[in-house]
Amino acid sequence: MRVYNFSAGPSMLPLPVLEKVQSELLDYNGSGMSVMEMSHRSKVYEQINAEAESLLRELMNIPANYDVIFVQGGASTQFEALPLNICTNKKADYIVTGVFAEKAFKEAAKFTDAKCVASSKDKGHTCIPVPDASMFRPDADYVHICYNNTIVGTRFRGAPDTSGIPLAADMSSMILSEAVDVSKFGVIYAGAQKNVGPAGVTIVIVKKELTLNPSPSCPTMLKWATEAAEHSLYNTPPAFSTYVAMEVFRHLKAMGGVKAMQKLNEEKAALLYGYIDNSKFYTNKVVPEFRSLMNVPFVSPSEELDAKFVSEAAKAGLLSLKGHRLVGGMRASIYNAMPMEGVKALIGFMEKFELQNK
Amino acid sequence: MRVYNFSAGPSMLPLPVLEKVQSELLDYNGSGMSVMEMSHRSKVYEQINAEAESLLRELMNIPANYDVIFVQGGASTQFEALPLNICTNKKADYIVTGVFAEKAFKEAAKFTDAKCVASSKDKGHTCIPVPDASMFRPDADYVHICYNNTIVGTRFRGAPDTSGIPLAADMSSMILSEAVDVSKFGVIYAGAQKNVGPAGVTIVIVKKELTLNPSPSCPTMLKWATEAAEHSLYNTPPAFSTYVAMEVFRHLKAMGGVKAMQKLNEEKAALLYGYIDNSKFYTNKVVPEFRSLMNVPFVSPSEELDAKFVSEAAKAGLLSLKGHRLVGGMRASIYNAMPMEGVKALIGFMEKFELQNK
Repeated sequence: MRVYNFSAGPSMLPLPVLEKVQSELLDYNGSGMSVMEMSHRSKVYEQINAEAESLLRELMNIPANYDVIFVQGGASTQFEALPLNICTNKKADYIVTGVFAEKAFKEAAKFTDAKCVASSKDKGHTCIPVPDASMFRPDADYVHICYNNTIVGTRFRGAPDTSGIPLAADMSSMILSEAVDVSKFGVIYAGAQKNVGPAGVTIVIVKKELTLNPSPSCPTMLKWATEAAEHSLYNTPPAFSTYVAMEVFRHLKAMGGVKAMQKLNEEKAALLYGYIDNSKFYTNKVVPEFRSLMNVPFVSPSEELDAKFVSEAAKAGLLSLKGHRLVGGMRASIYNAMPMEGVKALIGFMEKFELQNK
Repeated sequence: MRVYNFSAGPSMLPLPVLEKVQSELLDYNGSGMSVMEMSHRSKVYEQINAEAESLLRELMNIPANYDVIFVQGGASTQFEALPLNICTNKKADYIVTGVFAEKAFKEAAKFTDAKCVASSKDKGHTCIPVPDASMFRPDADYVHICYNNTIVGTRFRGAPDTSGIPLAADMSSMILSEAVDVSKFGVIYAGAQKNVGPAGVTIVIVKKELTLNPSPSCPTMLKWATEAAEHSLYNTPPAFSTYVAMEVFRHLKAMGGVKAMQKLNEEKAALLYGYIDNSKFYTNKVVPEFRSLMNVPFVSPSEELDAKFVSEAAKAGLLSLKGHRLVGGMRASIYNAMPMEGVKALIGFMEKFELQNK
């Protein structure tokens, strides 16, 4: 029996994608081998790789002057790659809105003069600072944000105005879940394991002009321009993960693309936040304007009841609802692949649990 | 129809492993989800991760004072990680026996005083320099070798004597194919995509004492000690690749372990090299003592016939036999998962091709 998996990532994949991957696991498309076994220099894999890129370009409406590459190492490796690829003035400004935004800032400080120009830390990261352009150093190489914050459950609403300073965004936990105007960003990167595919492949979307002057000490494996010139095949790629991502992209396109996913995600989130806000038993502390569409943390009246909730929900087939250890409580991650039925099943369980425990 | 895939990597996986992975692709072990979807903080994934480590320790007889970690980025990322983790004197000696050994050397030179102390370049890399301890700088942090060289098809025969300087080895293309005495190495690393599993996970085996003083500028994602302390779960791991690797380890153990694989690999290689050496049509140029067990390059009398060979072999279900572009000709990679029947089928084809084209 398949469960509803509310994990913050890795997380659910669309069932039709898993079924397709399963059906061709021993023999992909008549090649006589699994995608796991293919030379990345073979025509059959080159087609997968090219289709993954072109579908992502189509789904996100990525302008032609942007490179799109698939690399290894997760978003956390891009924390390092960013200041090593964009380093004209060796100065970068960071907005710190959560744990991963802070990790990105601290990692960058090893390689550049990194400055935290705004933070929501004193508010427990329950809101997003609204930046104005005067915050930023005019000679900063870039401004970095984490677009969606999984732990407390907040998100930016559109790209902040940076007065022309390139904007770099970690979009790991919201890529492809809502429309974004790529042209307002200099760099977008995202680990796959929330809305894209299995952990192990990382997407980097970068304006070509920002890839031209990497630091001399930038490791070859992290040079965006090298990967772009080789269409992500400079070295052995995480081929199976890229292939599953391609199948997810095909599925998203068949579902109506990002706008259709955004509509569904807004409906799922509205239902769940609406239920929580109308409840006297459950609470979400995030400023409504900045609530994440993807990660919905909530608490019951006590830590004991939180623990009981997580344990009983798991028995009911609603898994990985435990909140991050830093904030406790519960967290329902409702990425693209979580169906409306899963959210309804969760709310049904929440109602029953409240009745039995209030 | 499954083919015999002679790719240098990614390459064949054992069919029973692929069948098992296929059977549990939608629901791993009653968890209600695919391994691709699991939180890496879940008990079920922690068990996979722990079993992968313990089986690898058992198969390679890894001493307890060594850490074993599974990371992202391929062996090429370890080219950078090595001088950033072991940097007491910021000096390291390299033996250059092929393209990847040279890449490792050049990458290290960004971070340390790297010296090429021996090279087989002037001999077209068709042999392995026999190092003696006086070659090495006594205060070198480590000596680096690439144990098996896939392009020309050479290998070291045991660990060279480095007079106590820690020996670091890229074992990507021979790990688990023959017995090695791990205690003679300071660091062993290997990309998965030849003998271990799908591309995307990289094994690092390192003596604990060598992990203690990484460079302050070592990226967090590359710090061996951090990954070791977290049992490879500091960050989201390439979980599906690690899981397939665990299944390969189980399979190898059931087959009799590394010694049994070595016996089979020696038999396969002896048959193929023996056939080539007895032929007046095919040639392998490597000094016999240093011939790789894994990668067997050979040429026919002309480049035209080489191209015809590769193309006709593919039609006969013998795939990816084209040699590396730097050396041309053919290359049969016969890793652990290539059965004896595959080598016999190749030799059968070679006989027929010679008869038709000599």
